[in-house]
Amino acid sequence: MQEKVIRLTGSELTISQIKEIAFENAKVEVDAEAMDKVRKARELIFELDKRGVAVYGLNTGVGWNKDKVVYADRYDAYNKNLLRSHMIGVGPECSIPETRTIMAVRLNGFLCGHTGVAPEIVQYYVEFLNRGVHPVMKSRGSVGEADIATLPAIGLTAIGEGEAYYQNQRMESAKALELAGLEPLKLGPKDGLGIVSSNAQGAAFAAMGVIEAEQFIERYRRVFCLALEGLNGVLDPMDESVNRERGYQGQIESARKCKELLKGSYLEKPWEGRALQDPLSFRCQSAITGSVMDALGYLKQQLSVELNATDDNPCLLPEEDRMCGSPNFEPLTWVLAVEMASTGLAHMSKMISQQILRIGDPGFTKLNRFLTPVEGSVIAYGTIQKTVSYLDTENRMYANPCSLDFLSMAGHIEDTASNSTMAAANMRRIIDNLYYMAAIELMHAAQAVDLRENPMLGEGTKPLFESYRKVVPYLDNDRNMSVDIQKTYEFLKSYKTE
Amino acid sequence: MQEKVIRLTGSELTISQIKEIAFENAKVEVDAEAMDKVRKARELIFELDKRGVAVYGLNTGVGWNKDKVVYADRYDAYNKNLLRSHMIGVGPECSIPETRTIMAVRLNGFLCGHTGVAPEIVQYYVEFLNRGVHPVMKSRGSVGEADIATLPAIGLTAIGEGEAYYQNQRMESAKALELAGLEPLKLGPKDGLGIVSSNAQGAAFAAMGVIEAEQFIERYRRVFCLALEGLNGVLDPMDESVNRERGYQGQIESARKCKELLKGSYLEKPWEGRALQDPLSFRCQSAITGSVMDALGYLKQQLSVELNATDDNPCLLPEEDRMCGSPNFEPLTWVLAVEMASTGLAHMSKMISQQILRIGDPGFTKLNRFLTPVEGSVIAYGTIQKTVSYLDTENRMYANPCSLDFLSMAGHIEDTASNSTMAAANMRRIIDNLYYMAAIELMHAAQAVDLRENPMLGEGTKPLFESYRKVVPYLDNDRNMSVDIQKTYEFLKSYKTE
Amino acid sequence: MQEKVIRLTGSELTISQIKEIAFENAKVEVDAEAMDKVRKARELIFELDKRGVAVYGLNTGVGWNKDKVVYADRYDAYNKNLLRSHMIGVGPECSIPETRTIMAVRLNGFLCGHTGVAPEIVQYYVEFLNRGVHPVMKSRGSVGEADIATLPAIGLTAIGEGEAYYQNQRMESAKALELAGLEPLKLGPKDGLGIVSSNAQGAAFAAMGVIEAEQFIERYRRVFCLALEGLNGVLDPMDESVNRERGYQGQIESARKCKELLKGSYLEKPWEGRALQDPLSFRCQSAITGSVMDALGYLKQQLSVELNATDDNPCLLPEEDRMCGSPNFEPLTWVLAVEMASTGLAHMSKMISQQILRIGDPGFTKLNRFLTPVEGSVIAYGTIQKTVSYLDTENRMYANPCSLDFLSMAGHIEDTASNSTMAAANMRRIIDNLYYMAAIELMHAAQAVDLRENPMLGEGTKPLFESYRKVVPYLDNDRNMSVDIQKTYEFLKSYKTE
Amino acid sequence: MQEKVIRLTGSELTISQIKEIAFENAKVEVDAEAMDKVRKARELIFELDKRGVAVYGLNTGVGWNKDKVVYADRYDAYNKNLLRSHMIGVGPECSIPETRTIMAVRLNGFLCGHTGVAPEIVQYYVEFLNRGVHPVMKSRGSVGEADIATLPAIGLTAIGEGEAYYQNQRMESAKALELAGLEPLKLGPKDGLGIVSSNAQGAAFAAMGVIEAEQFIERYRRVFCLALEGLNGVLDPMDESVNRERGYQGQIESARKCKELLKGSYLEKPWEGRALQDPLSFRCQSAITGSVMDALGYLKQQLSVELNATDDNPCLLPEEDRMCGSPNFEPLTWVLAVEMASTGLAHMSKMISQQILRIGDPGFTKLNRFLTPVEGSVIAYGTIQKTVSYLDTENRMYANPCSLDFLSMAGHIEDTASNSTMAAANMRRIIDNLYYMAAIELMHAAQAVDLRENPMLGEGTKPLFESYRKVVPYLDNDRNMSVDIQKTYEFLKSYKTE
Repeated sequence: MQEKVIRLTGSELTISQIKEIAFENAKVEVDAEAMDKVRKARELIFELDKRGVAVYGLNTGVGWNKDKVVYADRYDAYNKNLLRSHMIGVGPECSIPETRTIMAVRLNGFLCGHTGVAPEIVQYYVEFLNRGVHPVMKSRGSVGEADIATLPAIGLTAIGEGEAYYQNQRMESAKALELAGLEPLKLGPKDGLGIVSSNAQGAAFAAMGVIEAEQFIERYRRVFCLALEGLNGVLDPMDESVNRERGYQGQIESARKCKELLKGSYLEKPWEGRALQDPLSFRCQSAITGSVMDALGYLKQQLSVELNATDDNPCLLPEEDRMCGSPNFEPLTWVLAVEMASTGLAHMSKMISQQILRIGDPGFTKLNRFLTPVEGSVIAYGTIQKTVSYLDTENRMYANPCSLDFLSMAGHIEDTASNSTMAAANMRRIIDNLYYMAAIELMHAAQAVDLRENPMLGEGTKPLFESYRKVVPYLDNDRNMSVDIQKTYEFLKSYKTE
Repeated sequence: MQEKVIRLTGSELTISQIKEIAFENAKVEVDAEAMDKVRKARELIFELDKRGVAVYGLNTGVGWNKDKVVYADRYDAYNKNLLRSHMIGVGPECSIPETRTIMAVRLNGFLCGHTGVAPEIVQYYVEFLNRGVHPVMKSRGSVGEADIATLPAIGLTAIGEGEAYYQNQRMESAKALELAGLEPLKLGPKDGLGIVSSNAQGAAFAAMGVIEAEQFIERYRRVFCLALEGLNGVLDPMDESVNRERGYQGQIESARKCKELLKGSYLEKPWEGRALQDPLSFRCQSAITGSVMDALGYLKQQLSVELNATDDNPCLLPEEDRMCGSPNFEPLTWVLAVEMASTGLAHMSKMISQQILRIGDPGFTKLNRFLTPVEGSVIAYGTIQKTVSYLDTENRMYANPCSLDFLSMAGHIEDTASNSTMAAANMRRIIDNLYYMAAIELMHAAQAVDLRENPMLGEGTKPLFESYRKVVPYLDNDRNMSVDIQKTYEFLKSYKTE
Repeated sequence: MQEKVIRLTGSELTISQIKEIAFENAKVEVDAEAMDKVRKARELIFELDKRGVAVYGLNTGVGWNKDKVVYADRYDAYNKNLLRSHMIGVGPECSIPETRTIMAVRLNGFLCGHTGVAPEIVQYYVEFLNRGVHPVMKSRGSVGEADIATLPAIGLTAIGEGEAYYQNQRMESAKALELAGLEPLKLGPKDGLGIVSSNAQGAAFAAMGVIEAEQFIERYRRVFCLALEGLNGVLDPMDESVNRERGYQGQIESARKCKELLKGSYLEKPWEGRALQDPLSFRCQSAITGSVMDALGYLKQQLSVELNATDDNPCLLPEEDRMCGSPNFEPLTWVLAVEMASTGLAHMSKMISQQILRIGDPGFTKLNRFLTPVEGSVIAYGTIQKTVSYLDTENRMYANPCSLDFLSMAGHIEDTASNSTMAAANMRRIIDNLYYMAAIELMHAAQAVDLRENPMLGEGTKPLFESYRKVVPYLDNDRNMSVDIQKTYEFLKSYKTE
Repeated sequence: MQEKVIRLTGSELTISQIKEIAFENAKVEVDAEAMDKVRKARELIFELDKRGVAVYGLNTGVGWNKDKVVYADRYDAYNKNLLRSHMIGVGPECSIPETRTIMAVRLNGFLCGHTGVAPEIVQYYVEFLNRGVHPVMKSRGSVGEADIATLPAIGLTAIGEGEAYYQNQRMESAKALELAGLEPLKLGPKDGLGIVSSNAQGAAFAAMGVIEAEQFIERYRRVFCLALEGLNGVLDPMDESVNRERGYQGQIESARKCKELLKGSYLEKPWEGRALQDPLSFRCQSAITGSVMDALGYLKQQLSVELNATDDNPCLLPEEDRMCGSPNFEPLTWVLAVEMASTGLAHMSKMISQQILRIGDPGFTKLNRFLTPVEGSVIAYGTIQKTVSYLDTENRMYANPCSLDFLSMAGHIEDTASNSTMAAANMRRIIDNLYYMAAIELMHAAQAVDLRENPMLGEGTKPLFESYRKVVPYLDNDRNMSVDIQKTYEFLKSYKTE
């Protein structure tokens, strides 16, 4: 099999490329023109210093220390100190896919040509990604006005300090460099700042949140459709004309996909015992899921700007032969979108919770209470609702915006923040909980379908049902539910939807 | 002066038209083609009933009562009962501009032709708007899956029940109808449901939130620019190239407008004591405000769909000669956007707070502490920071999403909700608080400018400063701050920016 | 009728005395011994100044200005400036009972003898309370480390500035003084600080919260008992032995009182259709309400410390002939208790919501759906659940702790806060909403009782039912629910429970 | 060394005994009188069944299934099904100390004699604790109206199902029983319900929260005192008379302990550059920490009731020869206290954050900026403030009450909840974050002391400083801060304070 190589230009990085780099170990290469920009920005740095211009992070300190001078003979020492002193994160540590994404995002940012780091620095990001050198990074610490708390780990590994994984083995960075055939780097002016001053961690986490949310929605959609079959529910709300007249894109796509998955299902025909209208949690599913898709659409659009633009401060403008102080590390537009997506996902959490409650209720299904095969002697899914409630409560907690809570720091020079990394982490925590909840819904859905004795299933729900039943069988008697939940969760996390 | 008349078509209502209807008492007229759609939908209702089709809200009950039959000879009684029993709101009452907006939004919705109400109903909304009949509406009660808790007030006034304002005088609805030259209406099938089943209140509140947010931002921008002059701050972050390279639309526009307002200001020239970079609350202002503008852009786009599309259930499809159960009352897409906007506005609240703290600090301004004219004997703006903190704390509270908290109601048929009306109310509470905060910033900004002894002000800040100083003079000695705050708040709320 | 006069000593003020002062216009008098303490503290002030000791707020500035000197010949001017510059509140304004409570609390604090204000100041608080001079106070602004943002209004009225009510008429303070036969005061050293540096507003609001919460609980208990009769519920959970074995005081008292109210009720006998156990919202009512009573007990205990102790800084210690910097304005212990009480009240909100949902459900009552008298034609209480959900959602918002959100102010000298006044305001907002919710429950309870056709009611529920039915009759047909809700709310707010 | 054995009686279990059982592997023995109560309750069960009384969980189902009959010949099967179907938790798993605490709490509850389980069940809890059999328990799932989601794991291990640790080795439960010399148990009537219907998990987590909070406070107090020495701060706020006059117990104790720790310190003498008053975060430390101690006092008092009383439903009353439905599983009183404690701890988080910001600020310390040894070349603690902000933001999130968010479950029989387990888990997450924050403060405090060149330290701070400096040396040049943070965190977590 040929190896996948992704060409980075500074302006075309997509979320699906990130998926390949992060999870499929795709390699990267750098566009020559982009590399040229990197070099021009570097030249400008030296030129400006020569002209005696005060450059933040070059010949002056950063943050409150912006009034302190940095002298040329101390570049290496100063930049090393900068990396070490900015290495302030606390655990848990980033996973290797997270670290790969962070490096890829920063690398693409360099290629915009506004940073001014040495081209060697840029090359090391390429080498790390391609040779499997993954610095050990802490995940907590950045307040999201550039992730200066966590990004120094990459720089430290490049100079042979700290720890790294090489080919998935953890070791001293110096050793990892050696095994990878790389020399420890020397740092020149602004290299430290260039490495740490970027939203790469937050943007990477958000990109992974988008990837995970979209995967989840595709998988969940199938679970929902099976649950609708378990419920003997109504297809009307997915009617093409009805949704078209409403006009929301997410809802339209959502309804259309559900209809396709349910093609051929017994739900397409009149059926005994079917209600005129289902509870809102079922009836509005396409609209609610569609709202989240709309929100993710906005998030992707705005995140895409971040992934393909400079977030440097100062911002080097080689074409105009100057440098300028910049607010470009402010990521609030997409952080707000992340938090909107989280609220949306928490609405899905509510909706799934209610669907599960309804599908256990004979008043709605006309099946046995809690989908027990035998009322009175088998308890079945009576208690499991508590776990659903617990997870939904956690999701409610994670859905409050954390972006608003921060201290005024650095002598009040850094008096606002976005908490981009925490916002994205919270979004991803919700998604993980949602997988557990969708797993519990799948348990109910499959059981309800079984209790209906072989109703015709849809084109998309039939394969789900069949492959699921190979992993978790029909509940004919009470058994350890924790085991079923875990198995179903794992089944769902790896279920192929394409 | 010629009277403004806005033509409604069901598909072209804009937020600026809403502004005219709400605040400038613009009249409305209905497009003939749209009215034709209304009639066709009405005909379909009778046709379907004749065919014996079960129609939710026509010949069957609503909510949990969807399993109950409604007989033709009880249409008027049933629909009156529906209005009365759905009249469940609690205070405070809507303002007249709010009521006007609600009526206009519902009216435009009727014109999409999917409701099936009698054309007379539609006509009464027109008459109410044009003759100044404004039903007394409670603001609290709707959970935002159609605002059935508050909209019945309009129907009740139309049948001569409840209270209304006529030409701004409060009276019994019957009296108001009489004075306006209107007869009490008789209700036919589905009229009750058609009146109450709409997101008009939530959408109206959200539209007013957008109007108010955009007005606020324009006014605040001027305050900020004056504050930057008070601070002797740096213009770099508004550099055109720097912002263009970043690529966020809101930020680009925001920076451009600030530069225009500051044209001619002493900030354009080097000046003694100016820092290399300002605190983030100043430096990132364009980006933060821009992020809110981006969020408002998404909100406007999605709200615009709601304002110009059906939210009816069932949805009548006259062109297809059928009716279909629908989830189109689900407003989540734009409710999520409202809450994103609120979070964004709460970030502005943090930013303004920090700007105020910084501008009172000699370390940043090199002016007297708390901008006192005389250190030691005049306290000036030392204590006022507490009010800023108080308001910011309230804003933090209102920024948490309320859309996620709801009960499962109506026999668990209505088991999800969006709380659209509360979400929009919270957004507007934040904006009102922001006016107080911007007022306090303006007090500081003007004082700092005065203490700088006539620096050259910008093209947009000079008129602000001058007109403000006619309302609130220079603080030469301590005086009752509460009075100054209130005056400045009122000044700002009516400051013209065009 | 003889006038009620309450003697204040600085150490014995109770919440029930506050109730009399606030709502029943009780007068106050000051204990002679306490007044002596006031005088001794005052003497110490002059003595210390003579010795050349630096005294915060006397001969040095306050807050960040603590490094500035205040000279003796400027005492009056300085203290006036202090009052004016600290007058920073924004609306809404305090009610007269609120203002009375604030003045009474501050007055009692003076009597601890650690403040050092002139005895005339103290006397003016007495006169204001007794002659009906009530300064116009803003309610928002204080962050709760002494309510310096709002308390200056009292001092301003005393010197003849600002506005006040005299015998419930609003006027200029100067006029109010004149009508009340009082001269404008002259301010001496530390008088300004003594007036403003106190937690009196927060403590007053909290005390009123306690009063209102306890009143609400007594009224609600009756509503609950009637609802239990409406439900045909089980008395077991109030069993004396069962509750005694559990051991929680609130629960024990709560259960005992319910049993008393239900003495003689048909619930004491077996009855057809009664369940073995009721839903938790009914079954755990005594425990949940009891938990709130436990929380209120802790709040009262800790608030009582505040009401009867010094919160001055500096703290004058006449017995030790010295003065000392103090942290005694920190009210966090009772503010945490206020927020615990709010969370508890929000649990009552959830419980009441669920009770209302259950009592509308034939599965639990075996009565008609939504307690309609005629299924199919009268909708009754089907929609009103939305209002319940709305109010509960607001309560959820107010239950989050606001005490944690504040700015670091005054040059970072004041870098923590408690937001006591907002915390207490939020508690009281929840209670007001709870009255609406309990009103809606009462509507249901009375209707269910009516539908049961004269079941024997309890000793405490029978009088409630009968007096309520004089205000709001049986719902035999749909009517404007908003009107019923408002009437029931007002009925309940004035229902006598003793 | 003799083995510690704790005698359990059902009424005297203390939190310090829990500490011994959990962390020091103390063994337990059961009081003979208490065991007698267990037997009497068991006899009553059979007696009631003989009399034909319907007993929830004995001869009728639980939850919504309370209307289903359970027949005597199916006791073992029914109870096994109950355990299996209630086993619904999800990860992470409980630690062994957590599992030990849970078992000890449930065991003590059995001894109240109101449960009715077989004495063999009780004995197995003793054996598990004493022989080191620790069932694998999931931590998430319970909504806190009895922890039925997670407690079944103990029962499953007792019957030889699921997994357990034996002597810290993980294995199948059957194997663990065998190695421990125990037979799989047979279940009789009500045994399943008796095992699962208890608040043992929530109470255990809360007890551990109390233990951890108190330990943290003692350690933090020392860090604070060293920080005060680093700051050259004022002792006044700890003045005995000042605190006594205020009257809050926590504050008094807190101030007294600080004074003791600082005995002999240079702070007791006048010193050049000392301010008149410190920022509130330092000045109010005793009061704020004291408020948390007050809150913990209330929590301990109320939790102690839970630990020593029945939470069974139904509640067996052998002395009265009857059984009664009970609400005694409602834990809200102490859950509210847990959430109050969390809010309090989050205030400590704010306070610590502000202390760290202040101690890095030359305006307060008159030391170098960010405590660098060399301004300009060593950055020192400039960036680390971001980590503080991050952790504080997380704490803010965990401080919102989660107890209020739950679903209405089990056919709406279980329509309220307390989320006790999540509330306690959140409290403990805050404490863990606080250790990181206190660690960062310790880094600053020690550095500031070093920069002051050997000032005389207090009796309690000197040993802290000296032992700390053996682990983390003076920061003479920038180094990897992440490493220092982690080392300091671990140092602090094991620092002995007795």
